[in-house]
Amino acid sequence: MNANARLLAAVDLGSNSFRLMIGRVDESITAEGSSRQIFQVDAMREPVRLAAGLTPDKYLDQPSRRRGLDALRRFGDRLRDFDREQVRAVATNTLRVAKNAQEFLIEAEAALGFPIDVIAGREEARLIYLGASHDAPACVGNRLVVDIGGGSTEFIIGNGYEPQLMESLYIGCVSHSRQFFPNGTVDEYAMKQAELAARREIQVLVQQYRHTGWQQAVGSSGTARALAELIELNGFNDQANELGITRQGLLRLRRALIKAENTGRLKLQGLKPDRIPVLPGGLSIMLGVFDELELDRMEVTDGALRLGVLYDTLGRNHHADMRQVTISQFVRRYGVDRAQAERVRQAALQLLAQFPEPPHERRDENLALLGWAANLHEIGMSISHAGYHKHSAYIANHADMPGFSRTDQARLATLLLGHAGKLGKLSASSKFFDWRMLFSLRLAFVLCRRRADVTLPDIRVQQIEGDLVEGFAVYLPQAWIERNPLVEYSLAQEADEWERVGKRYKIVYD
Amino acid sequence: MNANARLLAAVDLGSNSFRLMIGRVDESITAEGSSRQIFQVDAMREPVRLAAGLTPDKYLDQPSRRRGLDALRRFGDRLRDFDREQVRAVATNTLRVAKNAQEFLIEAEAALGFPIDVIAGREEARLIYLGASHDAPACVGNRLVVDIGGGSTEFIIGNGYEPQLMESLYIGCVSHSRQFFPNGTVDEYAMKQAELAARREIQVLVQQYRHTGWQQAVGSSGTARALAELIELNGFNDQANELGITRQGLLRLRRALIKAENTGRLKLQGLKPDRIPVLPGGLSIMLGVFDELELDRMEVTDGALRLGVLYDTLGRNHHADMRQVTISQFVRRYGVDRAQAERVRQAALQLLAQFPEPPHERRDENLALLGWAANLHEIGMSISHAGYHKHSAYIANHADMPGFSRTDQARLATLLLGHAGKLGKLSASSKFFDWRMLFSLRLAFVLCRRRADVTLPDIRVQQIEGDLVEGFAVYLPQAWIERNPLVEYSLAQEADEWERVGKRYKIVYD
Repeated sequence: MNANARLLAAVDLGSNSFRLMIGRVDESITAEGSSRQIFQVDAMREPVRLAAGLTPDKYLDQPSRRRGLDALRRFGDRLRDFDREQVRAVATNTLRVAKNAQEFLIEAEAALGFPIDVIAGREEARLIYLGASHDAPACVGNRLVVDIGGGSTEFIIGNGYEPQLMESLYIGCVSHSRQFFPNGTVDEYAMKQAELAARREIQVLVQQYRHTGWQQAVGSSGTARALAELIELNGFNDQANELGITRQGLLRLRRALIKAENTGRLKLQGLKPDRIPVLPGGLSIMLGVFDELELDRMEVTDGALRLGVLYDTLGRNHHADMRQVTISQFVRRYGVDRAQAERVRQAALQLLAQFPEPPHERRDENLALLGWAANLHEIGMSISHAGYHKHSAYIANHADMPGFSRTDQARLATLLLGHAGKLGKLSASSKFFDWRMLFSLRLAFVLCRRRADVTLPDIRVQQIEGDLVEGFAVYLPQAWIERNPLVEYSLAQEADEWERVGKRYKIVYD
Repeated sequence: MNANARLLAAVDLGSNSFRLMIGRVDESITAEGSSRQIFQVDAMREPVRLAAGLTPDKYLDQPSRRRGLDALRRFGDRLRDFDREQVRAVATNTLRVAKNAQEFLIEAEAALGFPIDVIAGREEARLIYLGASHDAPACVGNRLVVDIGGGSTEFIIGNGYEPQLMESLYIGCVSHSRQFFPNGTVDEYAMKQAELAARREIQVLVQQYRHTGWQQAVGSSGTARALAELIELNGFNDQANELGITRQGLLRLRRALIKAENTGRLKLQGLKPDRIPVLPGGLSIMLGVFDELELDRMEVTDGALRLGVLYDTLGRNHHADMRQVTISQFVRRYGVDRAQAERVRQAALQLLAQFPEPPHERRDENLALLGWAANLHEIGMSISHAGYHKHSAYIANHADMPGFSRTDQARLATLLLGHAGKLGKLSASSKFFDWRMLFSLRLAFVLCRRRADVTLPDIRVQQIEGDLVEGFAVYLPQAWIERNPLVEYSLAQEADEWERVGKRYKIVYD
């Protein structure tokens, strides 16, 4: 057990800053049972402003990529002694939308030394709430959390540790500042337009959120923290020593900003240089939030996303994996034939387990992913039976899947798309990650095609080795295949299909 | 009322033949109420063999297209005095898969003089069952209907007039004959392979279908009719005068065919020249059906699809539109916020109704389609809120929607995709059918964005005319817009968006 064993680390590749949080897991045993808490022991922040490097046609430019990689290299240095299970890195809106994100992520993972997951807006919202609910002041009843990021803003209402409503909107302090306040110029008209633009997005959730209601409003993220500090330090709240963000405080800050005419000329206590460029955008969004949700004040917490990532990672390591919960929900929601999914799952896992795992791969993760793919392979039938594998892949690629990163979802979708039909459609996507998983799933699918409980014979599989995966060999008992001519026919088809994409597929009946 | 007023016509652009059926509607009034029945009064058949003209890369070749157009011209001649409401033309598998189907359909509609709907496999199955259930011998309990077409085979179990299980598989007598019996060569091995290939497809539904069970098996389509005739006329059934298809009869026909070695050398009573090329494929599929479903005999009916189309058309004209039932099911299945959908629907219809309808268009059909688009515009939220309009369009494009043709679904999907966000994504698809419908839906969406019950003011809209649709003008009361700054902001955005695709969008506050 290494010296860091009770530490977990979260890396957050945000649109404004990149941050690292290291937490210590404390287990306390009480009369009610054991509980685990996470305490921050270290943090790093790098003002990368990645979203500012996004060109109009949505490519990350070279300087922003370099700033990002430099930051990640420093984080990687700090995390050198950490194991893979201890670290989770997530990327949010800018890397969701940048067209060259994939290219950047390959360099970024090399710089950090750990895999990086791009997460969807709602997954970000879920993690933010998870963090905020562990960190915000205690609250009876519902809690509203608003997280104004660089490129997106999340709104969550939850109770205790459970999120109930989650939304992610495409408004953020970096993008809003660039759009409405170019070169830092601020005037009444621009501020008004920026507020209206924010309110226009927010209004879609107002009815539902107000109907659900809340007892406490919390602003997480650096924007809320920075606004609160400016308001507090400059005595903009009605009570001079009042903490948090109030409507009066925001309006006084707004006046000061418009009077200065440019963010560069603003003279205020506690104004940090790297927050200046994103201040007017962040302020206008916060004013929009206060207007639309009719808020008077807001508590402030910080680091909610990173703390949420730490708690989520802690859950995964202790058999409370949110992803498993999501898979069960999807099986129910899409009316999956559980018996058939289970047949395919068992067969596929039994096949994959026969391959020796290369050392750089994580056996448990691959087995879990293959099992989930088997669970979900027929979800597309909810849309249509014809070409259902394409619909399964579409859903897995686009659905809100709590606990899954977009990276996870893309891998899952590739397996679903490839589990039946032509293989040619996959070879185009160059980064297919593991032919052995696909081979196992397809073979399981063929063996279970009859949708009946049958005892499968002893089937052995092997990889035909070369520089790359050259192909596979399947060994089946001669006596069994004679009783199952349809399997024999299907396997011959399967061999043709693999050979069509340049892989060998040897079938031996012995 | 024209002389044909109680007649309906169905045109079936099948993969093997094109057919026309004309039926007379008889209303009978009994003690239990009134009922409507359809009696065939005329029929035409043209052995177009469209599927045989499909090149390996899925393009319809010139000769098959010409054969198709010639046939449709003759049908069009027969239907010259029919009104649009009396005729429905449907196209099945070959036109589902042909890459140049769209191009062919434009010429085909011109030749026929009526619109042609491409229908999905399951919709075909539903219509086949509807026809077969009105035509097959009466039956207590469940009825299994198998329809071996030129390019696909449908399997339906139903009770009375209600289908319960529906499947459409990609096996058909034309494609199977081409694949396994090139040049009409038949031998034991090819026949065995063709049967296995059919069984491999059929096996996926066997468990479920056997579990549901049936009391009567009916073969519809020309293939079943032709097989039954050959078997009957040549005394292949065990009882010399036994009607329908029996297993023994099929096996004797199989022996005769293999003995002849080539379909061209087959000498049998009742062998029609234009059925010869598709006989071995059709026979092997039927043998696969008998094997997998463990049948001993099958009744035969003919023209099920066309009769089903007639009954379906009769329903649409008498306020029993299957499409309306499907929309209601989708609203439930996808958990649509009905109040919001209804707000958008009302506003959109009120806007569209203000445009004078050009004479060639069907006002009621457009209003119905726009209403359905409003009902369904948020179904994509079931997948994810982010970019939900794309998911709504995906579902509408791919889902099994009983009563809808693929053409209907494509139009619906275009409206769903275009109801929010950028318009540029649509102009690429050159054949957008009606900018006024899209304009009405988008404006309704903007007006109802707050998701609350509000009384909308009197809003007038106009088309700015040119050679094409040049743009639109919107008139709103000044007093109202002053109280609704977010609508004003959103309308300005909307105007920008339309101007970006080269249309004018004039907003007048008066």
